[in-house]
Amino acid sequence: MTTTGRRRPGRRPGSADTRGEILAAARKIFAEKGYDKATIRGIAREAGVDPALVHHYFASKDGIFVAAMELPVNPEEFVPLLTAGPREEIGERLVRFILTITSDAQARQPVLALMRTAMTNEQVVGMVREFMTHALLAKVAEALGVPPLRMEVAFAQMFGVVLVRYVIQLEPLASADIEELIELLAPTIQRYIDGS
Amino acid sequence: MTTTGRRRPGRRPGSADTRGEILAAARKIFAEKGYDKATIRGIAREAGVDPALVHHYFASKDGIFVAAMELPVNPEEFVPLLTAGPREEIGERLVRFILTITSDAQARQPVLALMRTAMTNEQVVGMVREFMTHALLAKVAEALGVPPLRMEVAFAQMFGVVLVRYVIQLEPLASADIEELIELLAPTIQRYIDGS
Repeated sequence: MTTTGRRRPGRRPGSADTRGEILAAARKIFAEKGYDKATIRGIAREAGVDPALVHHYFASKDGIFVAAMELPVNPEEFVPLLTAGPREEIGERLVRFILTITSDAQARQPVLALMRTAMTNEQVVGMVREFMTHALLAKVAEALGVPPLRMEVAFAQMFGVVLVRYVIQLEPLASADIEELIELLAPTIQRYIDGS
Repeated sequence: MTTTGRRRPGRRPGSADTRGEILAAARKIFAEKGYDKATIRGIAREAGVDPALVHHYFASKDGIFVAAMELPVNPEEFVPLLTAGPREEIGERLVRFILTITSDAQARQPVLALMRTAMTNEQVVGMVREFMTHALLAKVAEALGVPPLRMEVAFAQMFGVVLVRYVIQLEPLASADIEELIELLAPTIQRYIDGS
């Protein structure tokens, strides 16, 4: 295998274009194989580059997935953010983080696009399911020592709020102040985490 | 206006076909005008029947909407079900009702189909938004004396659970026992209703 692309022979390795081609290859491979079975090696092969170059750009499979789907946050950054600070405030930190990130239209747009596609496309829903299970929720559940079912019910609360707020746009939730929502939602998430 | 259909002249008023034509007309009118602006008169006109016949079949605009979208439950039946019985058990009744109804594949299929379409279609999302706001959530919120924002956050929890369980199909939530889910979710919904 060489760093010469199959589709654009002669392009320089490491150019902006190479990164874009790796991401395009990653989207194809993730959709075809799902998250679990996709490999950095397979993505590199599809892009016609050396696997080391993929590692150089994205560090991990999580990193490539997040970049390929244009997600606003990497699970690897998300976990330390939750575990830093008092445990009795994790609910508030998690709710504030999700509501703040999704309040930025540019940050939430790719997440909503992915969810919309997942709702109607079996391949994409499989990819999202595997990513959520093994890269996101399992890591958070393990880091916090929370049973996966509780983590998923907490996720369902926040997922539902984001959909009702930004997709269905029900009022008053669509225009509600973040602080008011944190007051309502933080105790819910905290209870799921505490196991009470 | 007569009971003679525009598309099938000569068919008998009140035949099975008339009911189907009213529902087809209703789907068209709800999609075009939204829930709020659709009227029984307008649906009757579109179907080429007398408004009295539409009333005879479906009693109310809610009734037509529920039948046209093949929803498994009418808000008019939903409210008495919640208000019957002790107030401190509303959370449990609501969670049990939603999880039981959605556990039936035939009952949940049209709800999921409507939600899938709403995720990607502006007209349909408008119709769903108006129906949820004015026919479903406002009635439940008013009957229970709960602020609409709290009712919407409770709805978001259950909506999220149904999506994660049946669309994304994350395990262990997808296979979780209903009683285990009620134990997790009922206190959440009860707290939103109690206002604590």
